[in-house]
Amino acid sequence: MEQKKLEEKISQLRAYQKILWAYDHAIGVMDYDRMTSMPPGGAEHRGESLALLSGEIYKIQTDPKKGELLDALAEAEEDLDPRTRREVQELRKAREKLTQVPKQEVMAQEAAVNRAIVCWQKARENNDFASFAPHLAELIDIKRRYAGYVNPDGDVYDTLMDDYEAGMKQANMDPFFASLKEKLVPLIQQVKQAQQPDRACVEGYFSVERQRALSSFVMEIMGLDPQHCVLGESAHPLTTQFSKYDVRITTCYIEDSPLTNLYSVVHEGGHAMYELSIGDELSHSVLGDGASTAIHESQSRLWENNIGRSLPFCQMLLPKMKELFPEQFSDVSDETFYRAVNMAEPSLIRTDADELTYPMHILIRYELEKAIFAGELKVKELPDAWNQLYKKYLGIQVPDDANGVLQDIHWAWGHLGYFPSYALGSAYAAQIYDVLGKAVNVEQCCASRDFAPVRDWLTETIYRHGMTYAPQELMERVCGAPFDPDYYVNYLWDKYGELYGVRK
Amino acid sequence: MEQKKLEEKISQLRAYQKILWAYDHAIGVMDYDRMTSMPPGGAEHRGESLALLSGEIYKIQTDPKKGELLDALAEAEEDLDPRTRREVQELRKAREKLTQVPKQEVMAQEAAVNRAIVCWQKARENNDFASFAPHLAELIDIKRRYAGYVNPDGDVYDTLMDDYEAGMKQANMDPFFASLKEKLVPLIQQVKQAQQPDRACVEGYFSVERQRALSSFVMEIMGLDPQHCVLGESAHPLTTQFSKYDVRITTCYIEDSPLTNLYSVVHEGGHAMYELSIGDELSHSVLGDGASTAIHESQSRLWENNIGRSLPFCQMLLPKMKELFPEQFSDVSDETFYRAVNMAEPSLIRTDADELTYPMHILIRYELEKAIFAGELKVKELPDAWNQLYKKYLGIQVPDDANGVLQDIHWAWGHLGYFPSYALGSAYAAQIYDVLGKAVNVEQCCASRDFAPVRDWLTETIYRHGMTYAPQELMERVCGAPFDPDYYVNYLWDKYGELYGVRK
Repeated sequence: MEQKKLEEKISQLRAYQKILWAYDHAIGVMDYDRMTSMPPGGAEHRGESLALLSGEIYKIQTDPKKGELLDALAEAEEDLDPRTRREVQELRKAREKLTQVPKQEVMAQEAAVNRAIVCWQKARENNDFASFAPHLAELIDIKRRYAGYVNPDGDVYDTLMDDYEAGMKQANMDPFFASLKEKLVPLIQQVKQAQQPDRACVEGYFSVERQRALSSFVMEIMGLDPQHCVLGESAHPLTTQFSKYDVRITTCYIEDSPLTNLYSVVHEGGHAMYELSIGDELSHSVLGDGASTAIHESQSRLWENNIGRSLPFCQMLLPKMKELFPEQFSDVSDETFYRAVNMAEPSLIRTDADELTYPMHILIRYELEKAIFAGELKVKELPDAWNQLYKKYLGIQVPDDANGVLQDIHWAWGHLGYFPSYALGSAYAAQIYDVLGKAVNVEQCCASRDFAPVRDWLTETIYRHGMTYAPQELMERVCGAPFDPDYYVNYLWDKYGELYGVRK
Repeated sequence: MEQKKLEEKISQLRAYQKILWAYDHAIGVMDYDRMTSMPPGGAEHRGESLALLSGEIYKIQTDPKKGELLDALAEAEEDLDPRTRREVQELRKAREKLTQVPKQEVMAQEAAVNRAIVCWQKARENNDFASFAPHLAELIDIKRRYAGYVNPDGDVYDTLMDDYEAGMKQANMDPFFASLKEKLVPLIQQVKQAQQPDRACVEGYFSVERQRALSSFVMEIMGLDPQHCVLGESAHPLTTQFSKYDVRITTCYIEDSPLTNLYSVVHEGGHAMYELSIGDELSHSVLGDGASTAIHESQSRLWENNIGRSLPFCQMLLPKMKELFPEQFSDVSDETFYRAVNMAEPSLIRTDADELTYPMHILIRYELEKAIFAGELKVKELPDAWNQLYKKYLGIQVPDDANGVLQDIHWAWGHLGYFPSYALGSAYAAQIYDVLGKAVNVEQCCASRDFAPVRDWLTETIYRHGMTYAPQELMERVCGAPFDPDYYVNYLWDKYGELYGVRK
């Protein structure tokens, strides 16, 4: 293609992405508002307006003229710079998926999700899985049809997982989870027999006002710029970005559970730091986002667990804890605090789980989703299957569905095939943390309360690239080797073996 | 038009309005978020995405196919039910205006407003009118060009005012303001000489927590359903509705100024009640909104002033004030509280002004805007002109531009020609309150803490109709007579004459 024409087409490509960005911005704000501020009675109309706007985006994304533009640029691939080439690839991929799905399906899913969310909230409150079951069944059907449109010859569950994490397939997730199961279940069983640490310091009453002060302290220590990142509140902590200049994180204050807020802020702060540090040049483009859901999760987990639950981080935090919560912390040592925040114990609720038992919660959802899409499990059989797996892998009895199969909102959101990326994120984090530890003295950063070296390294190797690299490619660039889940298993064995005096 | 074809076209008309409604919903949420939650660094991108979405709405509204649809329905006007006829009228009017304005102008205004808001915030902080002046000049030019496109032969300021309140023109606003000037300035001067009431009960420290409890009490008393209406916080209190099922009001807590919050909640609560009570059948249509800005303002003012600052309302509120703020209120009588909330005194800031001096603030802005668009006043002369008028009508010296010409955000928003509707709203309120008082025993509602009769009457006569009637037509229907500003002047004379012992 001649240079002038090429430049013109690239400029059209940028304008196209800018419009998509504006719609994303609007929908993101509407979603955030729904989670943080909306009165309950607004849900139906919010769902309706989101569905209508999704229809508008669908129209734009499937516009034949946009297809011609993308095809022309794809043909001139060799003349494109790497960034533009990747934009064209990502846009074509999204477009191909969409053009295969009828608009009615897209809007039907939006409407079904909205109904399912409303129903799920009540069903969880009333411990009433039966009322939620038809909604879940409808979403599963929609997802099955969706996968059929997008990839008629492929496996349904593989197609769904690939939507969240390019390349995530049962062929590689089966051995990953098998390895976790084989190597972690014995560790969890031994930890269960071992003596639990003294947790008195994180029990009792912690005023919301003091917890707020702790949140501010943590955000400042992490280096989250208040000009661009603010903390809100929602029942489920979350991170949303409307652009790299406006990133929101939320937390949840519970007066007798100070760690819920503390580690929500560190976790969501990790997500936020990623978004805040994406390269300026990627702004308003499809590449201006995290590399994938699992890579994103690796960054929140790295901050929450690998850094935030380390002994040096606890040492750094302790004086602030003593200042804010003298009643609980006046006589507490570094070691006691460190052991208290790392207590491992099989439990019912995924989002409250400790670092060690967490992947088992994901394994269970993976096995259930797989069975559902393989046609081996019916929706009405889900609660029993759920309860059996909690018994099998975590050795605990699920008392009711509210604390069991109904606990997560993800399925009501229609996020089927999403959970595996959470475990993958933790595993990525362990490997990245290993490399980070060789390049940066993280212990020293904790001691000096200055995480700039960590932020700079992560920005240079991961954050600034946004979606420029596919997740596996990024892992190879960062780690100098392909993804290897053994880092994760070894990290957990080292940490929890030491904490609980357990040997392989 | 044959029946089937007509029905088809009406259904297209409804679908068209539903899309516009969805965009309005998105933009409303983005605006609300900007005022309540957005970190400062997000402003630029928020402005950019809002401008891009405005461009999308512009494309939809000027789509020739939509024009054909509206024209066809307008031709079949006689076959239409009154509601549909009015929808077609309103949509055609909006469309006609838009198609006359080039898209570049619309987007230029959006971008200029965004720059102006950012600049205005700093300019006010730094008392630096000079830095804001070029932005204001640019907005005035844009508005002048806009009026030229929309109504080439009309008066610029008339065209701008008509955008906010159909039918609002200098021909009727000049005598309105002349009457206020003639009849209220002497009253204000006499009040200024009279003895001021004891205000000790509303001075001192009022904890935000206690003020929050007062807000909840007031919202409950007013009957604002928490399922559909929630209270947020923002520097400038406001009301936004995303649909009649999701209305947001905000307040501002100042620890040494309890009336700021109290009357913000009552004022915004009045706006909210209107939105919450619009007829279901008008949902998703252009008619599903208040009749006009002045009618809307009449409802907030009616609650804030005519009801909320009446003696019976103060009597009703006093026990709660004694409970929440015993230090200030333990020995306070109804009469003392009533006089304290009605203290009239010329002051600098419009939004803090009492009911009596308030219209003078509007008069001043009206005279300035008129002079600007008549070419009689330059932007750089504004601060002096402002200060002279504050001296002339309120007898006070403006110490600096931050407390003078820079105090309001409206001009930075590009809302030129908007202010007059505020005074009109108060005047409408006085006349409506007169009719309401004949139909409903408001004093009894206060005594029994049950405002259902007031709400029901307002719903029946005003709220449920949304934009079905033009403002003047609605006033005639409600009051059985045309709008008459004497109700307002007489109301103020009666109330403040009695309070300050002043006679005509």
